[in-house]
Parts: sequence; C-alpha cells; structure tokens
Amino acid sequence: MGSAMAWPLNDRGHDVQLVGTHLDADIIASCKETRIHPKLKRELPKNVQPFYIEEIEQALDGADLILSGVNSLGVHWIGKKIGPYLRPGQAVLAITKGLECDNDGNLRILPDVLAEEFPADVRDRVTCAAVGGPCIAAELAGRRDTSVMFGCRDAAMAKEIAGIFRTDYYHIWPTDDLVGLEVCAALKNAYTLGIGLAEGFLDRSGGVDEAGAHMYNIAASTFAQSTVEMDRMLQIMGGTRDLAYGLPGAGDLYVTTQGARTVRLGRLLGKGHTLTEAREIMAGETLEAAEIIREVGTALPKLEERGLVGDDDLPLMRALIRIIVNEEILESLPLDAYFHDMPAHL
Amino acid sequence: MGSAMAWPLNDRGHDVQLVGTHLDADIIASCKETRIHPKLKRELPKNVQPFYIEEIEQALDGADLILSGVNSLGVHWIGKKIGPYLRPGQAVLAITKGLECDNDGNLRILPDVLAEEFPADVRDRVTCAAVGGPCIAAELAGRRDTSVMFGCRDAAMAKEIAGIFRTDYYHIWPTDDLVGLEVCAALKNAYTLGIGLAEGFLDRSGGVDEAGAHMYNIAASTFAQSTVEMDRMLQIMGGTRDLAYGLPGAGDLYVTTQGARTVRLGRLLGKGHTLTEAREIMAGETLEAAEIIREVGTALPKLEERGLVGDDDLPLMRALIRIIVNEEILESLPLDAYFHDMPAHL
Repeated sequence: MGSAMAWPLNDRGHDVQLVGTHLDADIIASCKETRIHPKLKRELPKNVQPFYIEEIEQALDGADLILSGVNSLGVHWIGKKIGPYLRPGQAVLAITKGLECDNDGNLRILPDVLAEEFPADVRDRVTCAAVGGPCIAAELAGRRDTSVMFGCRDAAMAKEIAGIFRTDYYHIWPTDDLVGLEVCAALKNAYTLGIGLAEGFLDRSGGVDEAGAHMYNIAASTFAQSTVEMDRMLQIMGGTRDLAYGLPGAGDLYVTTQGARTVRLGRLLGKGHTLTEAREIMAGETLEAAEIIREVGTALPKLEERGLVGDDDLPLMRALIRIIVNEEILESLPLDAYFHDMPAHL
Repeated sequence: MGSAMAWPLNDRGHDVQLVGTHLDADIIASCKETRIHPKLKRELPKNVQPFYIEEIEQALDGADLILSGVNSLGVHWIGKKIGPYLRPGQAVLAITKGLECDNDGNLRILPDVLAEEFPADVRDRVTCAAVGGPCIAAELAGRRDTSVMFGCRDAAMAKEIAGIFRTDYYHIWPTDDLVGLEVCAALKNAYTLGIGLAEGFLDRSGGVDEAGAHMYNIAASTFAQSTVEMDRMLQIMGGTRDLAYGLPGAGDLYVTTQGARTVRLGRLLGKGHTLTEAREIMAGETLEAAEIIREVGTALPKLEERGLVGDDDLPLMRALIRIIVNEEILESLPLDAYFHDMPAHL
C-alpha cells in the first residue's frame, strides 16, 4: 500500500523516494534493475526512485512528507529508524493498521505508537496523520477510482496533506478524527475475520447443501453487527460515530470482505482449525486481524474494570477473542446476542 | 421467500397453507404431486399443504396469519384477492419489497398499499406487519441461521408475530418502526444495483488489468454511500436512523450484493447497456431494483418542492435515477459528491 501511494504522488508532480525495509530487499533490487515493482506488477512512475534501507538517510534528505507503510509488527522499529532524520515541520503519514494495548487497557492508535519512538525534541514538531477507508493497493496503483479519508488531529493539516495526494482518481476526504479513523481501519480487519467464519462453518457442515444453500445470511448479520460494534468502540474511544458507517467502517469492511487473506483466515478458523494450525497453513502471510483481536482481548478486561465496557457489550468481538486468544473452536457465532443495544429493536 | 417461511412455521408446529398465484401453477402442481418445491428444491415439511389460487378460499379458512409474498407488481392484486376472506383480528405479514409514490411525492410502504385494497370494514381491524433484513430464502428453508427484523406499528403485535416464527435458526428482532424497516428493505435493492455498476465499469474498461486490478474500491465507496443515503431517506420518511446500519440496511445490502440478480442488472447497466437492453437480456426476471428507483425518481422532484430534500441530497440515488428513468449511460459514479453531509468530514 505504501508503494501504491507513489502513483498519485507522482501524478501530482512530486518526487518520491521509495525505501524498502530489509524484508523488501528483493523488491527494491527489482525496482532498481527493471523499474518493475514485483508485488504491484507495474512499472514505477518516472518520479519514483527506489532505495534500499541502507540508503535511508539519502532517501529522506529533504523530504517534506514521510509515509510509513510497514506492517503492524514493524511500527516501533520504523519509528526508531526514521527518528534521527526527522526535521521539525515535516509530516509523517502512517498507513499501518493496528491498535496497541497499554498497561491501563487503553487501545492506542499506531500513529501515536510510531511518534513515541521519535526523539523527544522533534516529536511534537512533526505532524502525524493517517489514511483510512477502502483501498485495494493494486487499484490505486492502477489509477482506478479510490475514495479514502486522511486523518490528522490538526484540521488544517488534514486538509493540506489530503491536497498533496488528491488526483482525479484518488478522492480524499479529510477528517480531524484521527483516533476514529484508525480505530475503524484496525477493527475492519478483525471483523472481516468474523464475517469469514461463516464460510468455514459452511465447510464444516459439509458445504453448500443439495438445494444450493450457502451461509450468507450468517455473514450478513455478522457484517451488520460488525458496524454496530465499530460504532460502540468509537464511543468507547471517543471517536466520531458516523465513521463506522462511512468509508472507514462499512466501506473498508466491505472491500476487505472482497479480498482474500483475512476472509481465508476466518474460513480456516470457522472450519475448525485452531489459530496455530491456521498460521501454519497460511505461513508467510501477515495476519493483522489476529494481532488486532489479541490487542483488544488484552484491553477488554481492563476497560471493563474501569466501567467503560459492559458485560454484554461487543458479543461478536468476544467470540473472536475466544477464537484467537484462547484458541477455542466455536460451533457458531452468538447471533442472538447481536444488536442487543440497538434502539430500533423492541 | 414466502414459501421459505413455511419451514420455521412448520418447525414451530403451525399448519401452513401454501397458495401459489396463477404464475405459480406449475410450482403448486409439483408440490401437490411430489411434495418437492421446485424453486427451493426441497421436500415440503409435513405441516405444509399446497393450494392453487383457485383454492384460496379453502386455504385461508381459519388462518390466524396471512403472509403475502407476491412480487411488487402484484401488491394491489393480492390485496383485492385476499380482502374478501379477511376476518377482524387476523394478521397480515408482507414480504414484498418496494415503495409506491403517491401524487404528493410521498413514498408509501407496501404493507400500507396492500391494506388499502382491503374492504373498508376490515382494514383497521387486521394487523399489518412486514419482514426485513438479510435473508436468502434457500438458506432459511435449509434451516440455516438467519437474522431478520419483524416490523409492526403495534409494538406488542411485532413481538407476538415474531414469537410465532422464531426458531433456534430463525433469529427475529421485533421493531415498531414498520416504515423504517420497509424503506431499508426496498432501498437495499436500488443501492445494490448501484454497487453492481462498478463491475460493469470494469467490463467496459477492458476488465481486470494486467496487474490484477478490479474496481472493488468504487464498489466499496458506493456501499458506504448507500448506507449513508438509506440513513438520509429514513430521516426524510421519519424512520429510525440506526436501521440503515443494522440488519435492514447494511446487513441486507451486504447479502444482496452477494446474490446474483440485482448485481447482474447493475453490471449490465455499468457496462453500457440501456435499461431496455438489460431488460431484454434478463427477460423473465423481476427487476425490483429498477421499479424502486423509478418510484423514488417520481417522488424526488415533489419532495424537493416541499423542501424535504435538498439539491445535493442523495447523489448516488440521483445517478441511479438517470440510468433507470432517463435511460442514460453513465461513464462513472459521482464519487466526489458522496459523503458531503457526513459530519466527520472537514
């Protein structure tokens, strides 16, 4: 995703230095030799120059904006890595999706986790922002219409950074609700895993039956409950509730259910595999959804102790925690516990 | 769908008289001869007895509850047909999804349109209710978990009717917001057509590109805008807004996008076929989505005149109206006009 954002930047006339981590050395080698990005399967636009991680100082020299697209396990590392090169006035745009639970049960958004690794004298003098909403990288790099939100606590900066990236195919709505945006971006992965469970239950039951019945009805009620629980989490964390139902919530949840990886993990777990087994089957793939559910699982008892979450709150997330943290194999989802706090119901 | 609801009724020990319209004579003949429902491809449960339309008087004799599952073009007809047999105290449960625009631009829900056809002396003495939420008939008849809402203006009756149908696989939440439930149930068809357009745009652009890019990002932002516009329509029509984000809105929208018919219609229209051409290609299929968009298209100018809808309200629906009512071929969706009234955006 980090690489894909080079396309709109290039098209807006910006120079882009694309730096791979040590895990991406092969990608960068290919980019340098052939100018083809092997993951995105496209030729790099002309204003994009690839760099190895060892060349990071040169790459960051003079950058107005630094974009971090490492996976969620690499956030602390990249913060330490870029920290020494940061200059006051720069902006840092975080793409990585996740949440990190602190000792008090607070779920911290990753732009804040990242910034904490920056040197103290520069930390408050750079602007941290993030991207949320439905975006499949291959489509953005293919210059296909994509609508997202850019979040920054500083409203003016949210607008300014959005303006840097906006093209006729990259539609960007700025928001100052950075926390809400990041909560949705993270949770949509967790809940997509939940929606994917239905396919696994179907497999376990013997598959599509003789009359052609799938288990889409279970997936659909789980989709609806997912947006309801994202709304609930936004309330708990002080985010703007309508994000749950806009691009960052429902929109990103929808696009993620159309993708492969997280749905596949859910399907394996629904079929009756433990997380350990599913990890082996999907070796080499980053399972962000499992990491996020684990962090929420750590936070939940502490949030309950503090009276922020009730016993019957978040029944779907609680089922996901049983599967991911306790490695339980569930026979079904708690459908009757869904929607209990929706005022429209009698 | 009407037939599928015989399964939970049977399982709750009720006797079910299944009446086909004149269009369903073959289905009823098959049910009578073989006890196999040819559309649902399942054996009828033992408490279900099939009847031809000519046998309707006998079928309705002694019924506590009458369920109407005709398509939206048949609502007036079925109202006239069952009217003479209605008795005070009976309940009528409407499954048909749609809206009907009156001369003032009011979008009327079909249970009300149906009731208007009943004889005046019984109209106010029967209870009208409806079903909404994500339900693929084949799954309900397969006794697979299904979660829906039953709506009735009389809260006690909503609960009572829900109680008649509820089983361990048919999860029902009652609501007294009959209007909101029906608005969502109808609009989800219209908006699924909108989401399906993205696949047609993809076809028109030459399909998946050399790097594997689809147009899921367009579909996802359209999904999000669909729930936002359902919310807006609920505000206009006085419904409970959170229905847009629960089972009747987001949930039913999701399941409908997993189905074939409405997405296929959207795809044909997005590919560049006019509605007339698409109707020919899909001859024999009921295109409920087109009927609903047409009714909203008739209502919108009148709602604007009355100050209930603003110029920039409902940009996605307006695009759908151009396609369906004006038979325009659109190059794209108005993505930049989406979300303009979402408070989370700057």
